Amino acid sequence: MQNFHGLAAPGFESVLDLCDAFLAADPEYSAQVSAYRHGVKVVDLHGGPHTTADSITGAYSVTKGAAALVISLLVQEGLLDLDRTVAHYWPEFGVHGKDRLLVREALSHQAGLVGLEGGFAFDEFTTPGAAARLARARPLWRPGSCFGYHALTIGIIMEELCRRVAGARLQSLFEHRIRTAYGVDFFLGLPAELDSRYRDVLYDVDPGQAWLDPLSLEGLNGNAAVGSIMELPNQQTVRAAGMSAAGGVGTAEGLARLYAAATTGVDGGAPFLTRETVRVMSQEQVWGLDRSSGLDNAFAVVFMKPHPSRNFGSHCAFGHEGANAALGFADPAYGLSFGYIPQRAEDGRTSGRAHRLAAEVRRAAAALS
Amino acid sequence: MQNFHGLAAPGFESVLDLCDAFLAADPEYSAQVSAYRHGVKVVDLHGGPHTTADSITGAYSVTKGAAALVISLLVQEGLLDLDRTVAHYWPEFGVHGKDRLLVREALSHQAGLVGLEGGFAFDEFTTPGAAARLARARPLWRPGSCFGYHALTIGIIMEELCRRVAGARLQSLFEHRIRTAYGVDFFLGLPAELDSRYRDVLYDVDPGQAWLDPLSLEGLNGNAAVGSIMELPNQQTVRAAGMSAAGGVGTAEGLARLYAAATTGVDGGAPFLTRETVRVMSQEQVWGLDRSSGLDNAFAVVFMKPHPSRNFGSHCAFGHEGANAALGFADPAYGLSFGYIPQRAEDGRTSGRAHRLAAEVRRAAAALS
Amino acid sequence: MQNFHGLAAPGFESVLDLCDAFLAADPEYSAQVSAYRHGVKVVDLHGGPHTTADSITGAYSVTKGAAALVISLLVQEGLLDLDRTVAHYWPEFGVHGKDRLLVREALSHQAGLVGLEGGFAFDEFTTPGAAARLARARPLWRPGSCFGYHALTIGIIMEELCRRVAGARLQSLFEHRIRTAYGVDFFLGLPAELDSRYRDVLYDVDPGQAWLDPLSLEGLNGNAAVGSIMELPNQQTVRAAGMSAAGGVGTAEGLARLYAAATTGVDGGAPFLTRETVRVMSQEQVWGLDRSSGLDNAFAVVFMKPHPSRNFGSHCAFGHEGANAALGFADPAYGLSFGYIPQRAEDGRTSGRAHRLAAEVRRAAAALS
Repeated sequence: MQNFHGLAAPGFESVLDLCDAFLAADPEYSAQVSAYRHGVKVVDLHGGPHTTADSITGAYSVTKGAAALVISLLVQEGLLDLDRTVAHYWPEFGVHGKDRLLVREALSHQAGLVGLEGGFAFDEFTTPGAAARLARARPLWRPGSCFGYHALTIGIIMEELCRRVAGARLQSLFEHRIRTAYGVDFFLGLPAELDSRYRDVLYDVDPGQAWLDPLSLEGLNGNAAVGSIMELPNQQTVRAAGMSAAGGVGTAEGLARLYAAATTGVDGGAPFLTRETVRVMSQEQVWGLDRSSGLDNAFAVVFMKPHPSRNFGSHCAFGHEGANAALGFADPAYGLSFGYIPQRAEDGRTSGRAHRLAAEVRRAAAALS
Repeated sequence: MQNFHGLAAPGFESVLDLCDAFLAADPEYSAQVSAYRHGVKVVDLHGGPHTTADSITGAYSVTKGAAALVISLLVQEGLLDLDRTVAHYWPEFGVHGKDRLLVREALSHQAGLVGLEGGFAFDEFTTPGAAARLARARPLWRPGSCFGYHALTIGIIMEELCRRVAGARLQSLFEHRIRTAYGVDFFLGLPAELDSRYRDVLYDVDPGQAWLDPLSLEGLNGNAAVGSIMELPNQQTVRAAGMSAAGGVGTAEGLARLYAAATTGVDGGAPFLTRETVRVMSQEQVWGLDRSSGLDNAFAVVFMKPHPSRNFGSHCAFGHEGANAALGFADPAYGLSFGYIPQRAEDGRTSGRAHRLAAEVRRAAAALS
Repeated sequence: MQNFHGLAAPGFESVLDLCDAFLAADPEYSAQVSAYRHGVKVVDLHGGPHTTADSITGAYSVTKGAAALVISLLVQEGLLDLDRTVAHYWPEFGVHGKDRLLVREALSHQAGLVGLEGGFAFDEFTTPGAAARLARARPLWRPGSCFGYHALTIGIIMEELCRRVAGARLQSLFEHRIRTAYGVDFFLGLPAELDSRYRDVLYDVDPGQAWLDPLSLEGLNGNAAVGSIMELPNQQTVRAAGMSAAGGVGTAEGLARLYAAATTGVDGGAPFLTRETVRVMSQEQVWGLDRSSGLDNAFAVVFMKPHPSRNFGSHCAFGHEGANAALGFADPAYGLSFGYIPQRAEDGRTSGRAHRLAAEVRRAAAALS
């Protein structure tokens, strides 16, 4: 008998029912889902033939949310001012009209640097060399005039800002100040000794699909000159390096705990972000048609905000989804945090499983209030 | 034999044919449709098993257009200046960054006040208390930075501005200066003695539909903490109070006559709005993706403007549709006014019945010119 | 045996295969497709029952790209400054708030002059009288506040600017400085002696289709008071006059050669536009929801830019599509130019044949680099 297993605390049983319904409808369905409420784990479920409670897998751009929690610490500690220019911290960046771009603009997909001709080698993303190449680039639009998702390069910008203002790698700060400090099972850089827990993200490749022009805006954004974004976490070197844009791996429970540690605290401790930091970082910066995708989108500082096509939480919620429809977010209005990682890539917009599970968790939490 | 009945003046027979075609295709179809041309009634049809010529029913946000005609009078008489701040008239409103919001911005869905946590009780909307709560609120976006439909709260704003500049309830001004003055069968506050004419709006509730998070932007907008927008006019106390956002009830003929009285005059009299007032109030203020719905939208001062997804008239037209796809508008380019109220809620975008009927009326009018 | 015929140079054989696949799936399919790479013709194919290698047919708004190459020459030669106001060159234009509209704004669909009540007679478009009527008009939106495709009137603006700054008809400049100078088989004004090569564009008219209100923004844009845009090139007088917005006719080879002459040179000669002129003219000016269509759109100075719904090339590409899904563009990133003209009107957005052929040509070119 096929079922999901694990924790569904009293009041949250309907989350398990929903998972079981997904599995009944699709026997190949495999996923983990987890939630914390006021710092206490209330959901931790897994099921399906391709995952286990302990499996680690790729979460793609969900990683950006984890990295943005490091940026949040830098802002909270006064090392990084969102209203200064990027060039203030990183002078080489200030060329080709990019000298006036604010940190808050660069971190909300307004830089016009969605990719570079020739792309980035998979092992280049986390290096100062990638940042140096990006700094020299001419933006694809007048910086600040519109926004378009920077699928991979926003990670390069976050990492270089981190090196400049904190003198440390973003991954190191994440590892020491967040992951080990709070016992979080989500990694920006998976240690070799844990790699045996990794299971590949499963995804279909349509043999008849259109060629992605590496010099088109979409191709630049997807680093098509080098490879497919979908490959990234399944490459051992990529998940070992833990690139901030899409190299994070972990469990759904790790994701939920990560956002709980940030916003409510875990194990009775204080959250590592103040309410003011959360307010500043989760304030919506851009909304509308995304130049990169042609679809509606909404971003705070790095974090995604809920909007009709990606309606994952209350107006206070902030987080990020990934290319496989993984989803991680905090919703301060409910004291909730949430993680979802499907083993097989699926559709991530509002009608998809991630959002139905997120809604079920919030509904259960609301009923308890 | 199932047919629509009533008036289709020479040249407008095709409107009757279209109604009959709708009814032939759907025996449950029930609606009223009416039009005035140069102040003369040219269409007044009703049909289907659930309505009569005399039935009054809910028109939801079509009400906003009726209320906006009161606002138009205030502007015309110099009591309300669209280019002053809301706080100029309503000082308590000027907190949390709302001090610089212009009246024309607040009245075109730019305030970022789509709802409040906890919602509004059904009998609270028309009270100064609702306005006081709204005035104290922190906007959901930086006021003036984007727009998103305020399904219910724009009525609270209209009503409070009316109290502040005219010292009277919006509903009272509508009743005395418009409804009784021009014999209009559309009500912001249905008198008890007429309540027997009311027939409930019919609508389906999908038992499997998604939970609407009351703290999401969509839930705040829809007052989900308290109830469903669809219930509103079917509640006797709501239609008796006649909330400006969605509490109006009447006949299609009343709607058409209302806009005719405003723009062309009726019974040989002068219109109550000057051409200049119409120009000012019907000027498009915002266009693009609506933050609340994620769909394209276009607003003048309160009034909806035609746009590709809601293409109800010429570039001069202005009016409003409702959640049941009711529609009321004036089209000065044709000297037309139009009212449509279906008894059962239906789809309101361009391909729907309301817009096909509106196009047929304009086509007939154009052929007569 | 049904097949496409003509040139597919080594490396470009897959373009022929794709054409044959389209024809196998639709025996009525008829089209021409052509491409130049670094000034050398590499594709020149035709096939299907309704066209020949030599057939000339209508390309609708692809014409705007040809006309914009004349504008490019005026800019290159310093006769026209994109950052001056239209009224600087054309004082009569500076009324009703249009006095501050820049040339670059007017030429990127920001003027709000999508059409006039009453429309333009088919033989009026290329006359100074049309320009005089347009100059006197009140814009449909505050100029510069948004953009919406000007399907026909942008041609009137281009032509009048040309008369004002160069003292010559745009069509004359095109004929002498471009078409005959570079042996281009694309015409803004088809000479009578070549009219026997013309074959009508084939298109379906849905007898049940909705009435297009000539006073709606869509109707004004489509000149609905006078006729259908689809008729235009099939009228002999229209193609003889060669209106800049939609009156151009030619072959796909002519289109490809036109853009090659502009950007790479042909027959070993220099291109007629400098790299700097190409950069200036192909810079994206507007992006987002188009007020006229309600769909996403992106424009440089007159030229269309690639975007997710019309993804015809690299981020450097610029060109224009037509109402029949004809497509002409240059893609400097690949040294390519491209022309496609279907004999029967078809869908023009990214998934359509034009874009699949354009992608195949780029893929082939990329493989050769």
